[in-house]
Amino acid sequence: MPQGQPTVVPEDGLTTRQRRNRPVLAVHTGDGKGKSTAAFGLALRGWNQGWRIGVFQFVKSAKWRIGEQTVLERLGRLHEETGEGGPVAWHKMGSGWSWTRSSQDAEGNNTGAAAAAEGWAEIKRALAEERHDLLILDEFTYVMEWGWVDTEEVVEVLRGRPGHQHVVVTGRRAHPALVEAADLVTEMTKVKHPMDAGQKGQRGIEW
Amino acid sequence: MPQGQPTVVPEDGLTTRQRRNRPVLAVHTGDGKGKSTAAFGLALRGWNQGWRIGVFQFVKSAKWRIGEQTVLERLGRLHEETGEGGPVAWHKMGSGWSWTRSSQDAEGNNTGAAAAAEGWAEIKRALAEERHDLLILDEFTYVMEWGWVDTEEVVEVLRGRPGHQHVVVTGRRAHPALVEAADLVTEMTKVKHPMDAGQKGQRGIEW
Repeated sequence: MPQGQPTVVPEDGLTTRQRRNRPVLAVHTGDGKGKSTAAFGLALRGWNQGWRIGVFQFVKSAKWRIGEQTVLERLGRLHEETGEGGPVAWHKMGSGWSWTRSSQDAEGNNTGAAAAAEGWAEIKRALAEERHDLLILDEFTYVMEWGWVDTEEVVEVLRGRPGHQHVVVTGRRAHPALVEAADLVTEMTKVKHPMDAGQKGQRGIEW
Repeated sequence: MPQGQPTVVPEDGLTTRQRRNRPVLAVHTGDGKGKSTAAFGLALRGWNQGWRIGVFQFVKSAKWRIGEQTVLERLGRLHEETGEGGPVAWHKMGSGWSWTRSSQDAEGNNTGAAAAAEGWAEIKRALAEERHDLLILDEFTYVMEWGWVDTEEVVEVLRGRPGHQHVVVTGRRAHPALVEAADLVTEMTKVKHPMDAGQKGQRGIEW
């Protein structure tokens, strides 16, 4: 059991138990590695608790299949087969959106803003229906930054989500309003990266 | 495929392929959340590549069973059953060291420095024998900070490790010599944490 002690006890009328069990809105931001990797690490923990995991991948992360997808989907099948852990739903922007293909052109490429808006609309439905216990909105900060979704609406929907749904948003340059709304914000700062020394990304480390 | 471009091409006589495939020594440090979680996320990726994963947990992380252990060990059994992914070996300081019980007292508690030294000796053997493709030395920076292992020796052994073994070291206040030796260093900085607002850790998020 973790031994961390709160530094302040708020006068919010909640018991420690109630406060402990409040759902968390977390943001992993900054220029360093580990934002998405730590989010998928949380998905491991959540799966182990039997949580229903929902992943929504935006932007570049949606363009290739990363190891986490294979493994978390495998864990989702394990849940179906044996009842261990929880179910896993993995959605990728564009061709990966499982509920629509309307935002793709004839070649199956997604059309950016429209695809992002579809993704956000689905996330709103998922939140309203409380489909997941943990939602990972991977690289969603960029979609916000590019104005593909309305920041004010995003913050309002996330703040007002019903029930007990944890949400993790990843990506650089998280909007100040999102940081303000979040309970837990970590900035991953690059101290040193192999690419600075001329090394390119490699299998197993970068994807 | 990631599109990152190196900012400098070094004159080291290596081809891009050789450089790309160099084993990585990574350090996750800083006061923020996500250091260990991102390391275990990397283990997911590595498992998916069929890598042999070795986890060595030190300090407080060794005191309780975290979700990642359950899931990664489950993936290790999946490998044995079906051949998917790679094997997983998980060692915890003290009662979790699988190769010795000599550093425990009568109640089974580990005796700190001796247990840490045992752990480091085993890591050296594992590296010399190239037992794993990815080694995670979780919270090992504290063991270094407390002088339970010799920093100079640790850096020398990690730098000089044979073959193609990736190593990730986690923990706050990584020693400058370790940072200097590492290829990839990320600092996780706490911007905001629920404990600051009086919330305690919770299942699935903290462990």
